[in-house]
Amino acid sequence: MGIENNHKLIVNCLPLTEPEKAQFMRAAKGVPQEFVGDPAQRGNMNWHACIPEDLRASATAIIGNVPPEDCSKCPRLEWLQTWSAGVDKYQRPGVLQPGSMLTNASGAYGQSVSEHMFAMMWALMKNLHIYAKNQANANWTDAGRASSPSGMTALMIGTGDIGSHFAKLCKGIGMETIGVRRNPSVEAEGIDHTIGFESLEQALPYADVIAMSVPSTPTTYHLLNAERLALLKPEALILNAGRGDAIDPEALAAALADGRLRGAGLDVTEPEPLPAESPLWNESRCLITPHVAGGNHLEVTERRIIAIALGNVRCYANGQSLDNRMPLKG
Amino acid sequence: MGIENNHKLIVNCLPLTEPEKAQFMRAAKGVPQEFVGDPAQRGNMNWHACIPEDLRASATAIIGNVPPEDCSKCPRLEWLQTWSAGVDKYQRPGVLQPGSMLTNASGAYGQSVSEHMFAMMWALMKNLHIYAKNQANANWTDAGRASSPSGMTALMIGTGDIGSHFAKLCKGIGMETIGVRRNPSVEAEGIDHTIGFESLEQALPYADVIAMSVPSTPTTYHLLNAERLALLKPEALILNAGRGDAIDPEALAAALADGRLRGAGLDVTEPEPLPAESPLWNESRCLITPHVAGGNHLEVTERRIIAIALGNVRCYANGQSLDNRMPLKG
Repeated sequence: MGIENNHKLIVNCLPLTEPEKAQFMRAAKGVPQEFVGDPAQRGNMNWHACIPEDLRASATAIIGNVPPEDCSKCPRLEWLQTWSAGVDKYQRPGVLQPGSMLTNASGAYGQSVSEHMFAMMWALMKNLHIYAKNQANANWTDAGRASSPSGMTALMIGTGDIGSHFAKLCKGIGMETIGVRRNPSVEAEGIDHTIGFESLEQALPYADVIAMSVPSTPTTYHLLNAERLALLKPEALILNAGRGDAIDPEALAAALADGRLRGAGLDVTEPEPLPAESPLWNESRCLITPHVAGGNHLEVTERRIIAIALGNVRCYANGQSLDNRMPLKG
Repeated sequence: MGIENNHKLIVNCLPLTEPEKAQFMRAAKGVPQEFVGDPAQRGNMNWHACIPEDLRASATAIIGNVPPEDCSKCPRLEWLQTWSAGVDKYQRPGVLQPGSMLTNASGAYGQSVSEHMFAMMWALMKNLHIYAKNQANANWTDAGRASSPSGMTALMIGTGDIGSHFAKLCKGIGMETIGVRRNPSVEAEGIDHTIGFESLEQALPYADVIAMSVPSTPTTYHLLNAERLALLKPEALILNAGRGDAIDPEALAAALADGRLRGAGLDVTEPEPLPAESPLWNESRCLITPHVAGGNHLEVTERRIIAIALGNVRCYANGQSLDNRMPLKG
């Protein structure tokens, strides 16, 4: 290969099967690799990573979301591959040494999160959240009119992996799709029309379904505020599976209580968990799920995380540039 | 026209707008038509039809689900157009005179019923029925693994308007579809493969989702019984929006309680309403809705009922054969 790999050591915390370990061994070529993951964590919702004491001095690469404070205990660490999409706690100054590489599992979660949003949309349109609540009291009562997504327009705020996947689901059942993104000249699969954030106000009155999947940044904080909520149709549905603080929760609760919106499906809230005193818990137009759209709720997500890590191990061993690089801050 | 229409009188009980009444007048040509519907019922879930006393002697046609006992009070009645798909109460001997024509609104309900089943499928796959129940207690708790319909196989038992429409929704999101019908040589839109009822047992072990939309007949009674439920995958989901007695409720409750099925979405039950003591009410793998998939829960259903009636009024006035003819019994 011509690449000197003997000074490297990958500490792999993924919960892998034996055939998968063999795949990682082949991908790593001559690079030594220690498998410290617990295969029993496969299929559950909580993967844990930690670096055994005796490997800290020699680890040059870690695969897994180790506690950030453990990174500085690995003086030779040059690459961290997370199994999450969010990496903000590893981007902070002092966690990774300047010049280290940080890569995430972006792309592994789009199907899971977008399907969850799509399911919330259907449930709200058919009043299933109301029937499920009534079921606890053996209550056989008609909840009234339903609605149909056929021919409706979905507005995706955020057109990354999640927004694009959601748009494809919508297209498959006969909806129109509009995407909002920073650079509207970049096209995304499933999106019929792309507009910039500066055109958001013009688009809101046309949307039947608003699907939000934006990260938490200063520009997305309370992106849907009282003024923008007032631009929506009274039949509009809002879905949020990005970050809770993209919606002003008080303005949303007021709009729902006044019947100025058909409903809201929230997998993320501000703050989380949603406090017991929030009026959204008891709002019949609102369906709340406890930040479960992503994570490892689908088996396919686990397979994609492993595939992303496997590809990057191959690049690392070959001295090639890694996929899914994320910047360090400060 | 050459057709003598003066002896006819249509009593139209549909809740129509003024422009729609004008359409019906044009369709009826010279046939007199009395509009006795209440436009205020438009958009609500309960349409009522009755024939005013002074029109009973002269009515030759009625549009609307009048009480069956009122039909015999109309001695000249030769045609009844219902706004329901089910017409069994009008098919019984003594309700309509032999030789009378009975037509239903079959075709108006497929979109509404199939969309409701599709929404139930998504809700069960993403545990939304559990989260909606937890919401009543402000309970922010992860309900565990979800599943994805992508690449799954849906088995439609019944491939009429509802089954075919459901299959098209499934195809739109990447599922395979198999249809079960009496005559498997008849194809239906959205169905990849059609099999006869005699092949049902062979198909059940391959199905991930079983969508039932069969009418209540002696051959469909407890079609899904304990023996057939035992053939299903433990990950299978059952949806029923046809008639409740197509599933043995005790066998279903036992299979769900034992975890031998992923879940069931029931819009119809045996009997209805489902008795408070049924174990299905408290079964976390079961989502129950109170026979609301059809009816007038979607505006489009009302528009289609009116379109079917309008077409038949045109045929009636022209002396042509009517669509959606249903046989009288006995």
